[in-house]
Amino acid sequence: MPPLTVTDTLAARYAAVRAFTEHLCEPLATEDYVVQSMTDVSPTKWHLAHTTWFWETFVLQPYAEGYTLYDEAYPFLFNSYYVQAGERHCRAQRGYLSRPTVEEVLAFRHAVDEAMGHFLDAFDETAHPEIADVIEVGLNHEQQHQELMLTDIKHVFSVNPLRPVYRAHDHAPTLDPGPLAWVSFEEGLHEIGVVPGGTTSRERFHFDNEGPRHRAFVEPFAFGHRLVTAGEFMVFIEEDGYRNTPLWLSEGWATVDAEGWTEPFYWEQRDGEWWHFTLQGMRRVDPHEPITHLSYFEADAYARWAGARLPSEFEWEVAARTVWDGNGLPEGNFVERGRLHPAPAEPISQGDGAPSTPRLQQMMGDTWEWTHSAYTAYPGYRPVDGALGEYNGKWMNGSFVLRGGSCATSRTHIRPTYRNFFHPAATWQFTGLRLAKSL
Amino acid sequence: MPPLTVTDTLAARYAAVRAFTEHLCEPLATEDYVVQSMTDVSPTKWHLAHTTWFWETFVLQPYAEGYTLYDEAYPFLFNSYYVQAGERHCRAQRGYLSRPTVEEVLAFRHAVDEAMGHFLDAFDETAHPEIADVIEVGLNHEQQHQELMLTDIKHVFSVNPLRPVYRAHDHAPTLDPGPLAWVSFEEGLHEIGVVPGGTTSRERFHFDNEGPRHRAFVEPFAFGHRLVTAGEFMVFIEEDGYRNTPLWLSEGWATVDAEGWTEPFYWEQRDGEWWHFTLQGMRRVDPHEPITHLSYFEADAYARWAGARLPSEFEWEVAARTVWDGNGLPEGNFVERGRLHPAPAEPISQGDGAPSTPRLQQMMGDTWEWTHSAYTAYPGYRPVDGALGEYNGKWMNGSFVLRGGSCATSRTHIRPTYRNFFHPAATWQFTGLRLAKSL
Amino acid sequence: MPPLTVTDTLAARYAAVRAFTEHLCEPLATEDYVVQSMTDVSPTKWHLAHTTWFWETFVLQPYAEGYTLYDEAYPFLFNSYYVQAGERHCRAQRGYLSRPTVEEVLAFRHAVDEAMGHFLDAFDETAHPEIADVIEVGLNHEQQHQELMLTDIKHVFSVNPLRPVYRAHDHAPTLDPGPLAWVSFEEGLHEIGVVPGGTTSRERFHFDNEGPRHRAFVEPFAFGHRLVTAGEFMVFIEEDGYRNTPLWLSEGWATVDAEGWTEPFYWEQRDGEWWHFTLQGMRRVDPHEPITHLSYFEADAYARWAGARLPSEFEWEVAARTVWDGNGLPEGNFVERGRLHPAPAEPISQGDGAPSTPRLQQMMGDTWEWTHSAYTAYPGYRPVDGALGEYNGKWMNGSFVLRGGSCATSRTHIRPTYRNFFHPAATWQFTGLRLAKSL
Amino acid sequence: MPPLTVTDTLAARYAAVRAFTEHLCEPLATEDYVVQSMTDVSPTKWHLAHTTWFWETFVLQPYAEGYTLYDEAYPFLFNSYYVQAGERHCRAQRGYLSRPTVEEVLAFRHAVDEAMGHFLDAFDETAHPEIADVIEVGLNHEQQHQELMLTDIKHVFSVNPLRPVYRAHDHAPTLDPGPLAWVSFEEGLHEIGVVPGGTTSRERFHFDNEGPRHRAFVEPFAFGHRLVTAGEFMVFIEEDGYRNTPLWLSEGWATVDAEGWTEPFYWEQRDGEWWHFTLQGMRRVDPHEPITHLSYFEADAYARWAGARLPSEFEWEVAARTVWDGNGLPEGNFVERGRLHPAPAEPISQGDGAPSTPRLQQMMGDTWEWTHSAYTAYPGYRPVDGALGEYNGKWMNGSFVLRGGSCATSRTHIRPTYRNFFHPAATWQFTGLRLAKSL
Repeated sequence: MPPLTVTDTLAARYAAVRAFTEHLCEPLATEDYVVQSMTDVSPTKWHLAHTTWFWETFVLQPYAEGYTLYDEAYPFLFNSYYVQAGERHCRAQRGYLSRPTVEEVLAFRHAVDEAMGHFLDAFDETAHPEIADVIEVGLNHEQQHQELMLTDIKHVFSVNPLRPVYRAHDHAPTLDPGPLAWVSFEEGLHEIGVVPGGTTSRERFHFDNEGPRHRAFVEPFAFGHRLVTAGEFMVFIEEDGYRNTPLWLSEGWATVDAEGWTEPFYWEQRDGEWWHFTLQGMRRVDPHEPITHLSYFEADAYARWAGARLPSEFEWEVAARTVWDGNGLPEGNFVERGRLHPAPAEPISQGDGAPSTPRLQQMMGDTWEWTHSAYTAYPGYRPVDGALGEYNGKWMNGSFVLRGGSCATSRTHIRPTYRNFFHPAATWQFTGLRLAKSL
Repeated sequence: MPPLTVTDTLAARYAAVRAFTEHLCEPLATEDYVVQSMTDVSPTKWHLAHTTWFWETFVLQPYAEGYTLYDEAYPFLFNSYYVQAGERHCRAQRGYLSRPTVEEVLAFRHAVDEAMGHFLDAFDETAHPEIADVIEVGLNHEQQHQELMLTDIKHVFSVNPLRPVYRAHDHAPTLDPGPLAWVSFEEGLHEIGVVPGGTTSRERFHFDNEGPRHRAFVEPFAFGHRLVTAGEFMVFIEEDGYRNTPLWLSEGWATVDAEGWTEPFYWEQRDGEWWHFTLQGMRRVDPHEPITHLSYFEADAYARWAGARLPSEFEWEVAARTVWDGNGLPEGNFVERGRLHPAPAEPISQGDGAPSTPRLQQMMGDTWEWTHSAYTAYPGYRPVDGALGEYNGKWMNGSFVLRGGSCATSRTHIRPTYRNFFHPAATWQFTGLRLAKSL
Repeated sequence: MPPLTVTDTLAARYAAVRAFTEHLCEPLATEDYVVQSMTDVSPTKWHLAHTTWFWETFVLQPYAEGYTLYDEAYPFLFNSYYVQAGERHCRAQRGYLSRPTVEEVLAFRHAVDEAMGHFLDAFDETAHPEIADVIEVGLNHEQQHQELMLTDIKHVFSVNPLRPVYRAHDHAPTLDPGPLAWVSFEEGLHEIGVVPGGTTSRERFHFDNEGPRHRAFVEPFAFGHRLVTAGEFMVFIEEDGYRNTPLWLSEGWATVDAEGWTEPFYWEQRDGEWWHFTLQGMRRVDPHEPITHLSYFEADAYARWAGARLPSEFEWEVAARTVWDGNGLPEGNFVERGRLHPAPAEPISQGDGAPSTPRLQQMMGDTWEWTHSAYTAYPGYRPVDGALGEYNGKWMNGSFVLRGGSCATSRTHIRPTYRNFFHPAATWQFTGLRLAKSL
Repeated sequence: MPPLTVTDTLAARYAAVRAFTEHLCEPLATEDYVVQSMTDVSPTKWHLAHTTWFWETFVLQPYAEGYTLYDEAYPFLFNSYYVQAGERHCRAQRGYLSRPTVEEVLAFRHAVDEAMGHFLDAFDETAHPEIADVIEVGLNHEQQHQELMLTDIKHVFSVNPLRPVYRAHDHAPTLDPGPLAWVSFEEGLHEIGVVPGGTTSRERFHFDNEGPRHRAFVEPFAFGHRLVTAGEFMVFIEEDGYRNTPLWLSEGWATVDAEGWTEPFYWEQRDGEWWHFTLQGMRRVDPHEPITHLSYFEADAYARWAGARLPSEFEWEVAARTVWDGNGLPEGNFVERGRLHPAPAEPISQGDGAPSTPRLQQMMGDTWEWTHSAYTAYPGYRPVDGALGEYNGKWMNGSFVLRGGSCATSRTHIRPTYRNFFHPAATWQFTGLRLAKSL
């Protein structure tokens, strides 16, 4: 499938995004679409239907003349959490539904795709920018669910003693990225968040939680030039990091204790070697790769153990802009690359003479980076009106912000201002960490 | 499929029982095989595999020369609770497994069926009665799982807002069975439990909990001549039976309160009419049919409200022998009839003159009948040696005995001495009640 | 305090029973009266008030002319579970109440005692046998709470790391009771339960669950001549009884696993020696004493390990009548003896020649004996009318019957027909076991 | 008791603070000291002992020559959460301990007071500033527990159907504070947090989470001139605020739903009037008083309903410094005033002509004010070394910052930089809200 470009039409981008969702399903058996292995996980079938419900609810029903609801029962079944969009089925019970079948859900998808195709063919983006903006939300919404489909099926497969392989993959030997270096940033008053405006919906697009743009003073700080590696994390384990109470937040320690955590999620020891479950099945941990599937608690404890700390989200945004301004498409290990696991940083060349300032790597892709910033509203934040206003605002307690996207994120989906957020105990996403320190 | 007869060979009976299991799957979509809607429920796929594991573990592996395990991973996945047969997968997580797929499970079934076919063709029952007895357990075990497959898929479908139909069925109008009459039994010292011995494994067969045969004195009692009907139970509801605390056992009342019970399981009110979910989908409650899906708590409260009580299991066995001695095959509404729901009793003819003693009806089939006898060991009870000894003995606390089979039980599976047992809050089986009183 | 005799007047017995309740409180500090260390345990203060509420509710209010309620709030606070006697405070929250204070509760007691004193002085038992019968229930009810006060305060003290001593006690060295012998009983049809009638309320008294008297056939059996000892139980532990799954009921094993049981409740190992918490504080386990604080699950597993089984309650009643017919007062280690712990059986004399049949010991007192009989209704059972009908009947599921009383039971409280009952996981009562076998 | 002044000696302040702790106990019966009505609540007895343990552990043991531990068992029992100070008793089980008794705990207090008295008499603050700083922590720690003693005993009394009165109090009629006015603040770069340094320990003192001082840019904002009142909150209730899902955070709504919240904690409706439980017992809600015992979820929903938002903690600190710079002692309704409930704001005079900018009221005392700032570390934050480093740092997830102190806070305890923090569902503290908006 040819990659999208930033100049594609909405219709082309709609077709490409929708096709990519189904592309991700290719390795699955019918039975794989049904299972919900924990409350946080949704069945693949549900993702396929929910993303379709989104188009039907927010585009076709309000704007496509003559469109009739595909099935009266589906809005109830496939609304996720939009209270203002009506009653909905209990999240924890999505795995109890064998019907509609996969075939029926795909028929629903294709009917909506056909209606959307007709609609977009006739659609004048310039005349209806407010509808274009909703379509843009829909594209980004579907890309978020593509990432969840991968992390969810990884979890589903992981709890199966047969440990199925999602997609086999040959791993070439990797290079040691070498020791961590520090990249410094001066203090300053920065503009944080999105610049409003733009001619096209794509230029205008951002989630409401990325604004309003406002000023924040950032004290001098330094960042590790790359992500923390699995090999570095092994030292933390060996030196009893999981048993050293003072390293941990109180709730983190309670979680370690209650869950019996002694290593990162998906890891297990076999004959003294570390293995982990990946979308390529069980394989040995490659110490050069970034550590991933860390909870906030583990990332925070590791940083403390390393004599450092986690970044703030403002520091991260300031640093990210030095490597990419948000225009064009970012470089990095994204879902399109098909690796579906974080990749090692490039070694710092240490050839002739003193290396100058090391290059900041892996800011985009590979793993989401935990920040120590709690997920909350920017000054002056207002959710958009209506059901879509529930997208972000109502989750503003208890979570921490993550930045930068992962190996399961679409390259066309990420920005320096992008704010992801999860509860601090969550581990089933591709979450890792970069060290920071105050200067 | 032609009905089994009592004189069929083991090989013929094996083939028939195995075929019936698959026959029950015909209405299902692939997705339906995967879902576990509560811990008590197992996915259909699991039932198919577990019953196959049984043959492999208890017959083929010990007795079929040269048989090799079909898949190393299956014993762990498909052992239910036989501790002595090895480690096993967590019951509550059977619905988390998308693999092996239905197709793979059916391949496993057919491979085992082929091996069993070869084995049985060469098998001399007379020479190896101890093996024949194990095969007999396997046939009865599979019949038990056939009943569970029906009650489990009914539960799976019921939690789906689409309310799928397992098998459509036209319901002819029914007749009012008329008022309840009482059938009296004199006091006496009775032999309870199975008569040991028999020439064939089929004659010998009983579960270990049905013996040893022993003597019990039964005081004079009377039984309702038929099961309590849905219409009679509606009166209990209307007269606030679900809010009348003194009718209920303490734990029953706590359950009513905690679960918010206001009517039997699967019932719901629509525009002032009672409907219920059945294997034929949602339909109006027929007041002439026996009430079913009652917990012990509800059955016990109803009996108290009606000025009566539940039978003891010894009373039931004494009464049952007056209508069928356990030889031949019983009459009744069993799974072979395909109704898959209890059917009304026949009206008592009240034509010419005083009717003599009413005939005892519905002792076999229709619904399991709750007794007030806690499930415990008969005097001198010893479980059989080895893993099969876990079949019954280790469940002997907290449950009550049910007798008589249901509309989902095989006609070839039931006996007057047969003891089923469930926790008093269980409602997903075809459980109903017959009134009793002391004279 | 001089012991009660069977010929004392109701007034004298009322005074004695009430005084004994307060006598049991003598070792307590004010703070000790307040604590509820688990839901099953009630604060001493609550026991003092609840037993007083009983007299006020069931005797003074209905029968004592001109009596006015002591405090409007108390019926709500001190009703335990009598639904028909009005709303009541949540059992699990009894430990949340600091008020009324101990002093206020004692004032309530004394006011009620005064009113009861006046009432009983003028009371003609012969003229009002139905009132006398309620008073008799009250006396027995208070004795039951005396036993609970001891087992509850033992639990309260046990969860306190300071391990307070209820009452210090010097333990003389004990004698080894010698090996277990068996006492045989022939088969027979027996009358079980109370003989109705009697001239005085004391003669008439029994709890409703002890009747009606009915016939039961008992197959031939044998009983261990004494209780199982702590020393015998140590062997079970050493031989990995707590890890031998096939010995356990399924729910028992789940409990062992979930609770991490590796020895009896209150036991702990110190430097390779077994110690246990007693009402005399921590002391070494005396191997000659009967094992106590066993759950049904442990008693049942032990019996299976020992190649025996638990008694049925009918067997027990038949055997008990051979040592005491229920008239006069029983011999045994009861609460009046002040030992507050089971005592060793007497050694069997093995002196001159073959010992005749060993004497059946410890049937009364020492420890309650678990039977494998589920707690259920006797044929023809009817609870008494009104709130007192909730005393026994509504608990008839999930529990097992215990017989014989314990070292915390009053000597005037027990009978061969007496049926105590607890859930099979309960361990905080003085519960032990006697082995039985079928012949 | 004469008020403390800022120039008192450490010894005088020690004596005064310790005496005030016991002064708060005067209204209590012995039984009241024992109860733990929920996990968040500690028994008064535990507070008395824990604060004493603090002095013993952090001052007497390390610094008082020849001091010997009062009781070997107490460190285990009375350590709260300082992992580095050793093992500790489970928090949820503090209410299970009847021993040590109140008398024994008071003896412990007095012994430690005597030792501390000797120590402080000989203590040269200038020579040992690091010890003086620990003593200062101890004084502030004890003041925090004084506030908890009041909110905890309020909770203990509230769950008692008798609704005991902590301290009776006559309430004079109050004045309507009039409509809410707004006070504006300009944008600016501000120094946030404590100014390091100071000659005396009192001047130096702050909790580690109040630093390091750093710069933050604050966009223009406005604050309500006073706290939101109970009367204003009644309108929110009447207009179905508790049923209007879009007003609530997702977890807030889940809490409302699960807990059945329909009004603030401690409120109840009687004959159409709002009453609430206070330390003066049940009384009618005074609409002029500030609303209190709000969770973050309720405060946040109210602010959204009112078209406003909660303050950020930086805005709050900037605003607070306009009314008090942190030197001297603040004005306000603190614990010393003995009202033990928030008091109405003063009416804005609206006499002659247009009132100028309204005066900012109630910033200090009355109720803690929820901010929408998640509790996290300031840039460059480092906890102090050793066990005292666990005081604040390990709680930095999931809570929100509250500012300003309450009617249960000591006047000598609060500062503009002071950061309190609780989980968003907590309601048993004196928590209220002030509206804010972005300009």
